[in-house]
Formats: sequence, C-alpha cells, structure tokens
Amino acid sequence: MHHFERKDGILHAENVPLTRIAEEVGTPVYVYSAATLRRHARVFREPFPEGTVTAFSVKALSNLAVLSLLRQEGFGADVVSGGELERALRAGMAPDQIVFSGVGKTVAELEAALHAGILQFNVESEAELRMLSDVAQRLGKTAPVALRINPDVDAETHPGISTGKKDDKFGIPWDRAFEVYDLARELPGLEASGLDLHIGSQITSLAPFERAAMRAKDLVVALRERGHDIRRLDLGGGLGVPYAEGDVPPLPSAYAEALVKITSDLDVQLILEPGRVIAGNAGMLMTSVILTKTQTTKSFVVVDAGMNDLMRPALYGARHHVHEVKEKAGERATFALVGPICESTDQFDPAVQLTAPEAGDLLLFGTAGAYGAVQASQYNSRPLVPEVLVDGDRFHVIRRRPSIDEMLGLEAVPPQFVGDRKG
Amino acid sequence: MHHFERKDGILHAENVPLTRIAEEVGTPVYVYSAATLRRHARVFREPFPEGTVTAFSVKALSNLAVLSLLRQEGFGADVVSGGELERALRAGMAPDQIVFSGVGKTVAELEAALHAGILQFNVESEAELRMLSDVAQRLGKTAPVALRINPDVDAETHPGISTGKKDDKFGIPWDRAFEVYDLARELPGLEASGLDLHIGSQITSLAPFERAAMRAKDLVVALRERGHDIRRLDLGGGLGVPYAEGDVPPLPSAYAEALVKITSDLDVQLILEPGRVIAGNAGMLMTSVILTKTQTTKSFVVVDAGMNDLMRPALYGARHHVHEVKEKAGERATFALVGPICESTDQFDPAVQLTAPEAGDLLLFGTAGAYGAVQASQYNSRPLVPEVLVDGDRFHVIRRRPSIDEMLGLEAVPPQFVGDRKG
Repeated sequence: MHHFERKDGILHAENVPLTRIAEEVGTPVYVYSAATLRRHARVFREPFPEGTVTAFSVKALSNLAVLSLLRQEGFGADVVSGGELERALRAGMAPDQIVFSGVGKTVAELEAALHAGILQFNVESEAELRMLSDVAQRLGKTAPVALRINPDVDAETHPGISTGKKDDKFGIPWDRAFEVYDLARELPGLEASGLDLHIGSQITSLAPFERAAMRAKDLVVALRERGHDIRRLDLGGGLGVPYAEGDVPPLPSAYAEALVKITSDLDVQLILEPGRVIAGNAGMLMTSVILTKTQTTKSFVVVDAGMNDLMRPALYGARHHVHEVKEKAGERATFALVGPICESTDQFDPAVQLTAPEAGDLLLFGTAGAYGAVQASQYNSRPLVPEVLVDGDRFHVIRRRPSIDEMLGLEAVPPQFVGDRKG
Repeated sequence: MHHFERKDGILHAENVPLTRIAEEVGTPVYVYSAATLRRHARVFREPFPEGTVTAFSVKALSNLAVLSLLRQEGFGADVVSGGELERALRAGMAPDQIVFSGVGKTVAELEAALHAGILQFNVESEAELRMLSDVAQRLGKTAPVALRINPDVDAETHPGISTGKKDDKFGIPWDRAFEVYDLARELPGLEASGLDLHIGSQITSLAPFERAAMRAKDLVVALRERGHDIRRLDLGGGLGVPYAEGDVPPLPSAYAEALVKITSDLDVQLILEPGRVIAGNAGMLMTSVILTKTQTTKSFVVVDAGMNDLMRPALYGARHHVHEVKEKAGERATFALVGPICESTDQFDPAVQLTAPEAGDLLLFGTAGAYGAVQASQYNSRPLVPEVLVDGDRFHVIRRRPSIDEMLGLEAVPPQFVGDRKG
C-alpha cells in the first residue's frame, strides 16, 4: 500500500502532482510519501507486543527527515556505522532504541556507541568481541552484547544479499555459539544478554523467517540452561517488498504473527530491524526523458537518471516498475530504458513498455525508497540526486542538489600543479 | 610501469612510505603517484603527430589536482557531463582541447559547452543532433560536431563496458552514417567536421582497435567524397591495463603506432580519449585490516574499505591485485577479502593469499586509479574516501575526508518532523 496515485491522468504523491515537484526541484529526484512511511511503520509495529524495539535499518534510507518521521512513529534504529549512529541520534532516537550491527565495526565506532549508551551491540565475531571488551574496559563501560549467530538458513534470495548461510561473511557459526557466549561471559566489560539473527534481505516467503526464529528459540533456551541471562532476541530484518506487478511477499501482519507465535513464551524483549518493508514502496525515483534513439534492431529511451542515482539494476540486476507520470493515449511499444552514463551497465530495464516517449516526459521508477538514494554517487561528476518528502498537500526538499562548488569542495590542487609546469 | 616499490620491506609511493600516509590521513585512502601519471602521459602522447589532442577521459579519475597535472603534460579532456566540463575548465584545460561525449547530454550541458567554445561535440544520435542545432541557433553559435558512428566491432571485453556493438546504446548505426551526416549539413548551427568512434573499455588486444580505425578511415574517405569536410578523427579510448599478474595488454607505443600507421595519410587531426591507461596503474586504494574471522569452512579478512569505496569488484566482478604494505615472514594462507558493508556483495576477492593478517595491517588494492574514487559513494553513511597525490618526497591530500556535518550538509528536516509528533 502506498500513496502514489493517478488523479486526472497525472501521478500524485499524496496530494502533490509529481509534475510540480519536477518543475520546482528538477530531475532526477527521489520522492517519498510521509503518509506511506507512517502507514508502513504502524502496520509493522502494531502486531508486536509492547516493549518490542522496531529498529529501522538506517542503511536502507538514511535521510535525517525520514529518520525523524520514523522516530515520531516510535521507531528506533539499526545502525551499521558511526555515521549511521550519528544520524539516528540527530534524528532524536533514544539510545535504548538503537542497535549496532555490522561485520567490521572500528574501534572509533565502538567508542562512539559506548559513549552514546546504545541498547545492544550485535557482535559478529570473536575478534570483535575481544575488541569491544578492550574498548569497554578502557572507557570503564559495560557493553550490552548480542552475538549474531548464523542459523545456516537459506534465505532464498539474491546471493548478493543473502547473509545467513554458514559460509557468508556474517555472524558466528551455529556450532560455535556456546563457546563464544562462554567467552563473552569471561571477558571483562561485556554483558552477553541478547541473541541476534539475520538471514538476508528481500525475502519473499515466511518459511525462512520461521525456520530462523525456531532455531533462535532453541538457542535461547539452551543458552539459558547454560546459565546465560538472555533477555533480548533480535530477529533482524529482511522482509521483502513487491518490485514487479504480481510479486506477493508476506504481509507484515503475517510475518509479525508468525514471529510472535514462535517467541511468545520466551519472555524476551523482541528487536526487529525492518528496512526495505518500511521504505521500499514509500519512495520513487523520478526522471525525465532526454531523448529516444533507434539502433539497428533496438530502440532506446535515454533518461536523466543514471546508475549513479539508482544502483540496484546495475549492481543486483534488479528491476523497478516504470510508471509514466502523465497518462498518454496511443499504443505501447518496447524500449530499452538507459541512463546517460558512458557504459552499457547503465541500463534500468532492457525492455519496458512505454507510450510514445519523447523528450521531457516524466517517468518514475517504483519501489525505490530503499537502497536507492543511500547508494547514490557522483560518478561522471553528476550532482548527488536530491530527495523530496511529500506530506499531504506540501512537499519538502530533504536533501538538496549540491552546487558545483559544493561538489568540488573537498578537493584541493597543490600549488605545483597550478598553471604551467615549473622547472 | 609505476612508481610503487618496496624499500626496506615497506611499500612506497615514489619516496613516501605508505605507512606514513596511513598514519597521517587514515584509511581507506586512494594514493596516486604523480611520477606515474606523468610517465604514462608522456609515453602515451609521444608517438602521436603534433596537433593530436590527447583528451583524458575525465570519468576515469576526475580529481582537479590530477587534471591539473595532466594539463601540464599537454592533455586536454574528454568530458561526459556539465560537471566534468567544469572540472576540465577549472583545471586550466583550453577549450580547444576539450571534447564532449555521452549519450544523454542535457540542454543545459549543451549550452555550457557552447559557451565554453569546446573543440568538438561527439554527437551520438539524430535526436541529440537536432537538440544541439536548436541550442546553437538560439545562442547564435556554431557547434563543431563529430558524429559517433558505431563500427559494430566486438571489443572482446566485459559486456558492461563494451560500447561499439550495433545494439549497444551508444553511437549511430554504421549504415545510417551518410544520412545523419547529410542531416547535420542541413541543420543550422552545426558544422559536421569530425568523426568519432569508441568501441569499449579495458580492451587487451590491438586487433579491435585496428579494425575500428580501418573502418573509420574508409568512412572519412567516403564522407569526403560525399562533400563532407572531415578534419578531425576521434578514435576514442579503451586501451586496457594489467589488473592481474600475467595480464599483458598492448603497450601504448604499439597502440599508437598501429593507429598512426592506419590514419597517417588521411590528413586529419587525431583525437584520443585515454583514461584507464593513464590513471589505472597510477593509483592504489589503501585499507586497514579490521579483523579476521573463520566461518565453518572459510576464513575472512574484513578491511575498512568497502564496496562504496571501490565498486569495481561488486559491479563488474573485477579483481584488484592485493599487496601487503609491510613484508611479513611466514606462510601464506587463503582468505576471502571483504569489506564492512552489510551485504555479501561487499567482497573484493573470494580467495587471496596473505601472510598471517591481523588487525591494523595495511593492504593495497592495485590498479585502482581508474574508475575507483570516481565511483565512490557514502553508502552505509561512510565518509567519502579521501585521495592523496604523492609527488617525489611529498604527499598532498587532494580530496579530504568529509566531516559528519559535511556529510549531512545537504539534508534538512522540515519542522513538523522535529521532536514528537504534533496533533
């Protein structure tokens, strides 16, 4: 469910015609719907028991305005870097609603999170456990730890975003769980009071989640029998969203119901890390047609968004449904939809159906709210793509397009390279 | 040939130990060698006749300091966006040494390039030709045009960076060349005085270049017979570099010799667009080991560089040779070398040989000067990776790491999302 709808032939985000955003902000531009974000946040949280931490996966969509909105909806944050931790704090999220995940946390990042007093460090290796113990001791703090245990569950998703198999880089192998929990108990500065699992991303059936939750439950019971006081269970994120028409991932309510059912008698604080399911369908990338061209056997539509603005098609072979902002009469034909970047990789769709596309036409890539703007770069010296948040009748530029001076602001030319060569 | 060498067991960039750069700037960091850039620039230019324009492909490495150095070596620029045009001009490149390529130039970009008075617009479609004619007329200018004709030559390279086959998005089909040149002659505001070909990137044999140049030569002759005054021939870029030990791409001298031989009796100004061959081996990405971990059957080294800093492995399946900055005694073992980003895609090498890696060890990814820093993003809210240019005994930070305030500087939180929800 989202709030992008056609009115009088023109696609709107809530009550704002997308044509108006294109005129005032230019393209390419990400457009998010606040009502959609709120709706997704509520639908997701509602079935879980009180005290559950819904930690939004900041890596999916990290804009400060979006995080601030989600905080208003009671969300915390799952962060994977010092930068994301800082974002969550600036968005007003309470430290006890923040968990820190990731396979490669640095000493500086561990320090920052200890100073902030976050709810939980999701520790992914014995080496990290020892690092965290050292840092916590040095700072005179106690770090609340969940070990991320690898359930060896096949998430049945794209191999690039699967994270829970036994030889992925993530987590601690299942058969080493006892040993590493025992180590955590011995090491100073740590309190191993949680368990964390995460099996992947864009998962479109419930079964892998259920298998992982059941394994988690068994492990909590076994750890408690071993004397570990496990009070928090972090079941990660990974719930998929529909990218193409016909995709039917599980409803958040069904997902929640399944997890609650499995874990209800465990007496743990649940932590969830939803990202894509909250943000995916709440955002679209709007672009303008620059020109069309016909090669020997293939016709192309070249748009002003490039793979630098939306990496998912180039990086994962992902497809985003393409919408025409203005309805057009006439027959549809097949086009390859490509960006302006000088490589063949810069293709959004090899075969999309469009009605007589021409320069200036506005197109939307659907389901681009998650893993869209966050992966954008300035490749080909293209300005960072801006972001707009629509809320009812109004829209707000929540990340503006940089000027050329801002794009070059971090660079410096040493004197010997200025002007003709000396000597 | 490059100037990264081991002295007393420590890898140096020219006379600077890489350990010093790591201490003073931190990691991850790109390190370029000025001597290597100069050497590559000279070796490349030397065999070509006077008057040849060597237009560095800015998209490969766009840092202002590098462009300024290359300008000192007599280089111009091949740009693919308004941002790259501005970079070339700020680096002091003369407009008559600048060509503008790309399949999706916008009206604003065409205007900027016409105002700058660049040498040549490499026009890739009939639609672009008409746009350029309109803009030039409106500004009262004449646009010097080369049509990019698609030679339908298989570049024998990665499909993502092949650009000269008949159904790539690039260029104008061969069998439409006469027709579109005739159109260019008829349209006001244009002077079709050049021919442009480009067949791809990272090409490691001479044969595709020779085939393309011979096709170009035939076409120049035929166009002249048809009354077109073709005075410039742009043969593009695409010469490969060695990524792995044992790779032996053609020497620039052999490449130049072949192209000069084919075109010497044509009486045209040659334009070349080298990128990777100049910058590739002149730069490396330095990273620190965060930790090592052993999963069920596989050992991992997690470093502090991620796919957001160097996209080529994740995006193209590319491999960069890995060097240890400090020589170590002991046996080598096999590790998967991965970054800290929370997805399995973030892997640099599935199996690299390293000697007893431990936290803090410095590693270098070789041949990272081209398509490295330019593709970097801030994904996972990681600061944009800095760039350092070594020149003899000194090094210069030519792009510094942004602060968290700079990273968030383009974002704004509308008042209704600040604090608890109103109403």
